[in-house]
Amino acid sequence: MTTDDPCPVFFLSDSTGITAETLGNTLLTQFPAIEFDRMTIPFILNVEQAQAVVDTVDGLVARGLRPIVFSTAVGSDIRRTLATCTGTLVDLLGTYLGQLEEALGTRSSNIPGRAHGLGNAERYQSRMTAVEYAMEHDDGQSLRALEKAQIILVAPSRCGKTPTTMYLALQHGIFAANFPLVDEDFDREGLPEPLRPFVDKCFGLTTNPLRLSQVRTERRRGSSYASLRQCGFELRSAERLYTSHGIPFLNSASMSVEEMAAMILQRMKLKR
Amino acid sequence: MTTDDPCPVFFLSDSTGITAETLGNTLLTQFPAIEFDRMTIPFILNVEQAQAVVDTVDGLVARGLRPIVFSTAVGSDIRRTLATCTGTLVDLLGTYLGQLEEALGTRSSNIPGRAHGLGNAERYQSRMTAVEYAMEHDDGQSLRALEKAQIILVAPSRCGKTPTTMYLALQHGIFAANFPLVDEDFDREGLPEPLRPFVDKCFGLTTNPLRLSQVRTERRRGSSYASLRQCGFELRSAERLYTSHGIPFLNSASMSVEEMAAMILQRMKLKR
Repeated sequence: MTTDDPCPVFFLSDSTGITAETLGNTLLTQFPAIEFDRMTIPFILNVEQAQAVVDTVDGLVARGLRPIVFSTAVGSDIRRTLATCTGTLVDLLGTYLGQLEEALGTRSSNIPGRAHGLGNAERYQSRMTAVEYAMEHDDGQSLRALEKAQIILVAPSRCGKTPTTMYLALQHGIFAANFPLVDEDFDREGLPEPLRPFVDKCFGLTTNPLRLSQVRTERRRGSSYASLRQCGFELRSAERLYTSHGIPFLNSASMSVEEMAAMILQRMKLKR
Repeated sequence: MTTDDPCPVFFLSDSTGITAETLGNTLLTQFPAIEFDRMTIPFILNVEQAQAVVDTVDGLVARGLRPIVFSTAVGSDIRRTLATCTGTLVDLLGTYLGQLEEALGTRSSNIPGRAHGLGNAERYQSRMTAVEYAMEHDDGQSLRALEKAQIILVAPSRCGKTPTTMYLALQHGIFAANFPLVDEDFDREGLPEPLRPFVDKCFGLTTNPLRLSQVRTERRRGSSYASLRQCGFELRSAERLYTSHGIPFLNSASMSVEEMAAMILQRMKLKR
């Protein structure tokens, strides 16, 4: 092993692996100088499969590497098998189950987690319905049933409305529509007509002119639509519109959809 | 406090709160008999905000409740403040940082996590491009650039193609298209023509006839489209098509989009 070898990281789960990846990656961001080589192994359902992973990890250790293994496996036999591996094992659920059992005054179920399964069927179905709603109401395509929206994202083209809407729907089950602001909206006084009854549900996005121009250039190089001048005009006009109607807004230039969604939910006081 | 009061649960974060919610909820699924009342408080950026949360938690304790607090805060001053709360504190990052520092032979950065921030800009941009691609290629809308797809989900109407596609794109940055199977596809021999060059990228979905009929009835009550007979015919024909072309498939009836995505990635050997 040379010090240049990236550090092998395993995310192990008896289910989807989402929880192991999420907490594991969050922990790894605390070590920005180290390069990691990640592998997710979901659906580890028996001791044989667990042993195969242990063999892989031990093989890397034998080659001089120092693998890190994040696991959210619940079954005690699988956990016992994984515990024999010679890498650094981070047993994400096991660590806390004792503490929680004590706090809650009851034993844990010890059944492989379905945290990302169907779970509450009603809640799951409402998320799927929210995705459908978001698809139908993307980019002002349909103005029907806008009253059902819990939030309407408003912004000029290419400020991040669509992915943010999708994220709100898919992850949080929020009924989210989005509505594009175009030149004609800035010529007229007031909000675009379809939005007027719903100003309380509107949330604006903006970005930086240079960033917007870059993104639009990828779509239509050399167009007036992508020009810095036009982008600056639209963003200034949009912010004026938001401010004059008391519409909260945020700048998408340096934020991920996850961060925008979290801020939007917080500022609009929407329950996740 | 009566034993009927749901147990208050807080997910605290100096960032989006996604990691705290994900691991916290996974842990709570291990206690299925207990009812929880969840609240996420993201973007706790200073000691004053942390103290306000501590006051809230302590207020609940004073009323006889036993709140559980999951935190992914990184800053040591915020963590110290949260540690003074009288609820059960589960310090999700703090628990492991020492272990990882030792394993990696270096100190952690101690900078509030941006695990769900823009992170690797290139990777983030490719996820956003994947969302755009998925929107354009939903439901066979566009057959352009199908060669760019890493996966093409194939299924009769209402088997879960769209949300699964969106999840693959948004969460994993996978270029995913989807293509609806209709009656004419079952009349003819072989795969629908646009799919033929890409059979290796196809992944089928199926469901149970009764479930499909219920879902379609919500959309078009009393139609032949929603009839049990038609649903059974389409699902049988689809499975025959998958089998005869060696297309892997799964049944979406009892699986979440998260579980389907994890299985699809695993079976298609796609890197997350």
